[in-house]
Amino acid sequence: MLKKILLVSTSVILVACSSTQLSNIKPAPVAELNQPLNIIMVVADGMGPAFTSAYKFYHDDPATPEMEATWFDRHHIGMSTTYPAHVSGLVTDSAASATALAAGIKSYNGAIGVDVDKNPVRTVLHAAKANGMKTGLAVTSQIVHATPAAYIAHNESRRNYDAIADQYFDLRYQDDFWVDVMLGGGTAYFDREDRNLAQEFTAAGYVYATEYAELAQIQVPSRVLGLFAEKGLPWALDDPQPNRLRTLTEHALTHLQNDEGFFLLVEASQVDWAGHANDIAGAMAEMQDLHDTLLLLEEFQRAHPNTLVIVTADHSTGGLTLAKDGEYRWSPEYLHHIPVSVESMVLTMQEKDMNGTERVQYLEQVLAFDLTIEQEETVVLMDLSQGLRALTAQIKPFIDAKTNTGWTTSGHTAIDVQVYASGPHADKFAGQQDNTDIAKAIFAILDK
Amino acid sequence: MLKKILLVSTSVILVACSSTQLSNIKPAPVAELNQPLNIIMVVADGMGPAFTSAYKFYHDDPATPEMEATWFDRHHIGMSTTYPAHVSGLVTDSAASATALAAGIKSYNGAIGVDVDKNPVRTVLHAAKANGMKTGLAVTSQIVHATPAAYIAHNESRRNYDAIADQYFDLRYQDDFWVDVMLGGGTAYFDREDRNLAQEFTAAGYVYATEYAELAQIQVPSRVLGLFAEKGLPWALDDPQPNRLRTLTEHALTHLQNDEGFFLLVEASQVDWAGHANDIAGAMAEMQDLHDTLLLLEEFQRAHPNTLVIVTADHSTGGLTLAKDGEYRWSPEYLHHIPVSVESMVLTMQEKDMNGTERVQYLEQVLAFDLTIEQEETVVLMDLSQGLRALTAQIKPFIDAKTNTGWTTSGHTAIDVQVYASGPHADKFAGQQDNTDIAKAIFAILDK
Repeated sequence: MLKKILLVSTSVILVACSSTQLSNIKPAPVAELNQPLNIIMVVADGMGPAFTSAYKFYHDDPATPEMEATWFDRHHIGMSTTYPAHVSGLVTDSAASATALAAGIKSYNGAIGVDVDKNPVRTVLHAAKANGMKTGLAVTSQIVHATPAAYIAHNESRRNYDAIADQYFDLRYQDDFWVDVMLGGGTAYFDREDRNLAQEFTAAGYVYATEYAELAQIQVPSRVLGLFAEKGLPWALDDPQPNRLRTLTEHALTHLQNDEGFFLLVEASQVDWAGHANDIAGAMAEMQDLHDTLLLLEEFQRAHPNTLVIVTADHSTGGLTLAKDGEYRWSPEYLHHIPVSVESMVLTMQEKDMNGTERVQYLEQVLAFDLTIEQEETVVLMDLSQGLRALTAQIKPFIDAKTNTGWTTSGHTAIDVQVYASGPHADKFAGQQDNTDIAKAIFAILDK
Repeated sequence: MLKKILLVSTSVILVACSSTQLSNIKPAPVAELNQPLNIIMVVADGMGPAFTSAYKFYHDDPATPEMEATWFDRHHIGMSTTYPAHVSGLVTDSAASATALAAGIKSYNGAIGVDVDKNPVRTVLHAAKANGMKTGLAVTSQIVHATPAAYIAHNESRRNYDAIADQYFDLRYQDDFWVDVMLGGGTAYFDREDRNLAQEFTAAGYVYATEYAELAQIQVPSRVLGLFAEKGLPWALDDPQPNRLRTLTEHALTHLQNDEGFFLLVEASQVDWAGHANDIAGAMAEMQDLHDTLLLLEEFQRAHPNTLVIVTADHSTGGLTLAKDGEYRWSPEYLHHIPVSVESMVLTMQEKDMNGTERVQYLEQVLAFDLTIEQEETVVLMDLSQGLRALTAQIKPFIDAKTNTGWTTSGHTAIDVQVYASGPHADKFAGQQDNTDIAKAIFAILDK
């Protein structure tokens, strides 16, 4: 396989010679490429152009005159459309877009690894496994959530989490499991009353972990099922493990390295969830964890030059924009001081049964800015017996007002997303493309 | 100059040989490049990623299964930050961003071709003229509006339109005028009580035109001052000249072609104005005129391969997003049937002094969709003696509701914009960059 890939690389270079377009990606010396090909696909769920622009400003060090470069600045290479199959209109959900990114086909919103006729489709993870590569996933949602599920399972509906979890064990490639390393959340789906998949995986030779601290104790390499929350992991702002996605990714890499290469899916799942919640503080914290993960991958590529990293979003969430109400201002500086999620703030107010004055004092301390008189009134009049969603919806606008952040929806939008790529074959993802083209390009690399 | 540029091209090709990135731009045979270098800079004012995504869906032919490719799909090459000098925060206005695109420096919002200390700065148009190239502009705003002004003039404030117009005549390069062909709007600034610049230009050898029909009568090549409206041109939806930007650009090209090459600034000025007005029907019509102009430039490049076309936006306007209120839908199909601007609809209702029933009938006919009961009530209760802005603001939400279009502001946002380039040296604009880098790259090409 390796020899074929090198021959292909040569022909790519010849084509580049007859072109006028420059690369800003330095290829590794051919000697170093004498390693198996690794492919790391990073899906930043919900991360449209507004999120990467926002993160650049959030990431900037105001003490320096220049705007500090991000990983995204170094590796921007294209844009992608995200629309689903015609039957679902122009705005995709994460299932249809994950099926597009994984299998290279347009399907309907809700589809997990099936086409519009609900037939199972082959994915790039399946192709990698069939090539003898190890496979893995590291995500911050439950591992059976739409994006990872679409790379592995086949189901007519993303909501059938139990059935999808069953498939992670039951579907096989030549009697072997499809995925070697699975890290994220989701004990609720793997340790159930009707079936204990965690036990079944353990009996089949997997190490089962439920605490981050256990990860460092696992013999390398092992097959691992690591589930660190009942469903999704806590928000990046609340998780006791700083940079949890980076941690999971780092451990996945140690177990996946081998002489035949690997395919790893990394998903920053909760950029999307912060978008749905119209939570700019949460969104930037998720972007920070993603960015730290990307810096880790950059390090990994330096040590393992024959590693292709592709990063894209499946769609943009929340209709985020960086200004609202006619004001020419976006002020991310207020976001750096917020140490916990807005949900966590509400839970603290509820647990301590705070009165109006206590709430105002607490919020001003934890948000690190003064509330306006109208905002104070809102907080004092807040009925703490309401649900979490209703209460957080009253507080998040304070952060939007301070930062001048705009949102248009609790759902997704149809806006194109960026594509980033680094390493061998990165050029295959250049320019304007469709999300299905990304899978097709990966298939073309794997099927050589 | 030509020989130097060809040598530079050779070194570029060598660099590309050591890269892994592919080009999708076919270079012209070297023989054909034996022509002067032409540079066409297209600024689509206010066109952030939401506008190009929206236009792709608007442009799509629903009768075919595939999504038709646009010019933007063929030539996407990078992204650009747009933030102004630190003193103005993160959200730029069109003056600071035009100064960045023209001169390669960050300045304050409002600055026309001056730095933060209000000193004049040299622009790429100045560099082109000093290289012996002809220069021109074709815009849909008044020609002294922020974007074109920043390429030519120097003023502490974009609002000083008369002073900027004076500079178009008074500022000189070695006793000669800076701009050979100026097409757009703005008679109010050139035919004034205190000074008649139109007459002065005519006396200096320029052909002065105020009707589109006159353009075809002008001897080629001529120096031309063509002003087809008092200030900005009518909306694309209302202008009697279909594709007015394409028409102006076509005429500019005929007068600019010469043995020393040319620099042409094209501005789709009113994409921004539709964004400020939160007018999706207007925005798509402006995008259509821009796209037709880009197809014209593609044709021009086929005949004149040594022409570099760069397209970008100065910022994104309106906080446009393609879905709102939790609904997973964006429905551009309703926009194709709208034949006039919302402003024109209001003027018609006012001129005919329509009663409530007549207004509802008229709007349903011109919008080509039924109003809801609540919308009908709004129309019946509308006080037609109100100003145009107040009245259009009551009608545009009907179109937003039908198409599910979201907006967050009447101003600009801080979101990155796309960069497109085609022709020789297009590679210089690849990847993530700053708006000042675009000017720097053009200077580097011109100053060889």
